[in-house]
Amino acid sequence: MAKCSRMAAFVTGAAGFIGSTLVDRLLVDGHEVIGYDNFSTGQDLFIADACRAQDFRLIRGDTLDQRHLTEAMSGASIVFHLAANADVRFGTTHPAKDLEQNTIATFNVLEAMRVNSVSRIVFASTASIYGDTDVIPTPEDVAFPVQTSLYAASKLACEGLIEAFCEGFGMQAWIYRLVSILGERYAHGHIFDFYRSLRVDPTRLRVLGDGGQRKSYLYVQDCVDGMLLPLEHSEARVNIFNLGTDGYCSLRESIGWICEYLGVRPVLEYAGGERGWVGDNPFIFLDTTRIRRLGWHPRLTIEDGVVRTLQYLERHQNLLERRP
Amino acid sequence: MAKCSRMAAFVTGAAGFIGSTLVDRLLVDGHEVIGYDNFSTGQDLFIADACRAQDFRLIRGDTLDQRHLTEAMSGASIVFHLAANADVRFGTTHPAKDLEQNTIATFNVLEAMRVNSVSRIVFASTASIYGDTDVIPTPEDVAFPVQTSLYAASKLACEGLIEAFCEGFGMQAWIYRLVSILGERYAHGHIFDFYRSLRVDPTRLRVLGDGGQRKSYLYVQDCVDGMLLPLEHSEARVNIFNLGTDGYCSLRESIGWICEYLGVRPVLEYAGGERGWVGDNPFIFLDTTRIRRLGWHPRLTIEDGVVRTLQYLERHQNLLERRP
Repeated sequence: MAKCSRMAAFVTGAAGFIGSTLVDRLLVDGHEVIGYDNFSTGQDLFIADACRAQDFRLIRGDTLDQRHLTEAMSGASIVFHLAANADVRFGTTHPAKDLEQNTIATFNVLEAMRVNSVSRIVFASTASIYGDTDVIPTPEDVAFPVQTSLYAASKLACEGLIEAFCEGFGMQAWIYRLVSILGERYAHGHIFDFYRSLRVDPTRLRVLGDGGQRKSYLYVQDCVDGMLLPLEHSEARVNIFNLGTDGYCSLRESIGWICEYLGVRPVLEYAGGERGWVGDNPFIFLDTTRIRRLGWHPRLTIEDGVVRTLQYLERHQNLLERRP
Repeated sequence: MAKCSRMAAFVTGAAGFIGSTLVDRLLVDGHEVIGYDNFSTGQDLFIADACRAQDFRLIRGDTLDQRHLTEAMSGASIVFHLAANADVRFGTTHPAKDLEQNTIATFNVLEAMRVNSVSRIVFASTASIYGDTDVIPTPEDVAFPVQTSLYAASKLACEGLIEAFCEGFGMQAWIYRLVSILGERYAHGHIFDFYRSLRVDPTRLRVLGDGGQRKSYLYVQDCVDGMLLPLEHSEARVNIFNLGTDGYCSLRESIGWICEYLGVRPVLEYAGGERGWVGDNPFIFLDTTRIRRLGWHPRLTIEDGVVRTLQYLERHQNLLERRP
């Protein structure tokens, strides 16, 4: 992968799963990095290596604290905005969370950029934004979709804000619509839940939906590759890319891989229904032609990604205990 | 037009241009109406007739006051959410205004509905939501557009929130993407500005852009027809309709009509540029096939709408003085 010219990168969500992986990569590539995180879900463990690097500075803070955020961003040449409420499933139990931590937080990031004259932003959006579309694999320019979750609605709001700031204030954006991401430092989601549950009781596994939900997953290092490559190769005002593997698996298949890895044969107890939860997209699979044209391609298959994730969880049992 | 079965309608922005026209119509149609307005741009004059009706109750309040809003909505069976910052042009001079008065306010309305078990919402969205599209006339299911203004981005965020609440909490929505609306009680926009300016100095007129901007306009009574008809005839969970005339005019043409009406021949001073302002859509023209299939069609042409607007302003000179 081509390397970008030296950047002073401000990374929100720097201690998170994707954020910390991105930080490490940016440091390896010779960039200066300011990491910003409120550690609500971020982990010291993830950012420990980075903290030993000379070109890294960690600032503890919240994207909802506009003044602190603005001060922290001083001197940055580009912002990677990864901080978010990524808890897709529980939108309806605390409806304001996505609005605050995603929409309003992104507005704050954009305002802080404006004050600091930072004109470039990379944003982690989501494949869920395609809502109720029945065009699969889904391209970036699919018919205007209807939203199905508060999480996706908040990311849609973020995309709109970013685009309007680009137009109104001469900023430039790279927006990535991500499928679920897997790999080292993965610390929430169905593999995490299944792994933890099977370690406690390998004889049975409760599964949301009917197991037929089909999803695409991407390995975190492939994701970081995909987020960096277009910075040098796609220079429109607003650059939108899908990021996902060119395949998908059913929930049943991924359960099969997990059970095989662990050598267990649980009774599967399906909750039933096409969707895992209210607003779940039962089939997510993205058309990634646009970014592939730039030369990007994922190196790991979904199954490889699942196995890497399990190996990581094996080595970091303490992560399992930390979750509520 | 068919009439809906009796509703207890809660109308936000009830003292505004479209809101007050809708309120009057709902009362004529035999519905009970609670009007909610903070009178930031609403006018007592517009709601004076309604206030004499037995089935109308006016509550002064702000959609940003969640508690008051929730209390005020008690007893409603449907919400018409029209309150908004409708000042499309000045998004970049106060970037937080659209976020607060449109996105957050709409979230508050949805939360108030949830608490009050109100399941139906009618929402006034905008044709500007089609952003940078080059598909004209634009259908509702055009390719996923990129936003160009903070105003449109905030309305996009509102649409997403409404759709997610429909999915998550079993609500039902009618979302109307409106072109600019004209007619009685019109109190801001280019006809207003031109009319006021030409009354002060009929010899010259400053025009934003190059005059070539093409826009579609709809007469306010046609708009209200369009917002009510689908309530009985389109019963999906989320119903999205464009509302506009089947033609458009250039800014130059509408200036011609205004000058003809006033009998003046000003020197036109064009600011230049394709767009009237940053983020302006230089060509707005909607495909309204979807709502026409339900039997709706606008009764007035754009020119007729412009003339009605001028006649109204002639009769209500005090409106001109009230504006800052």
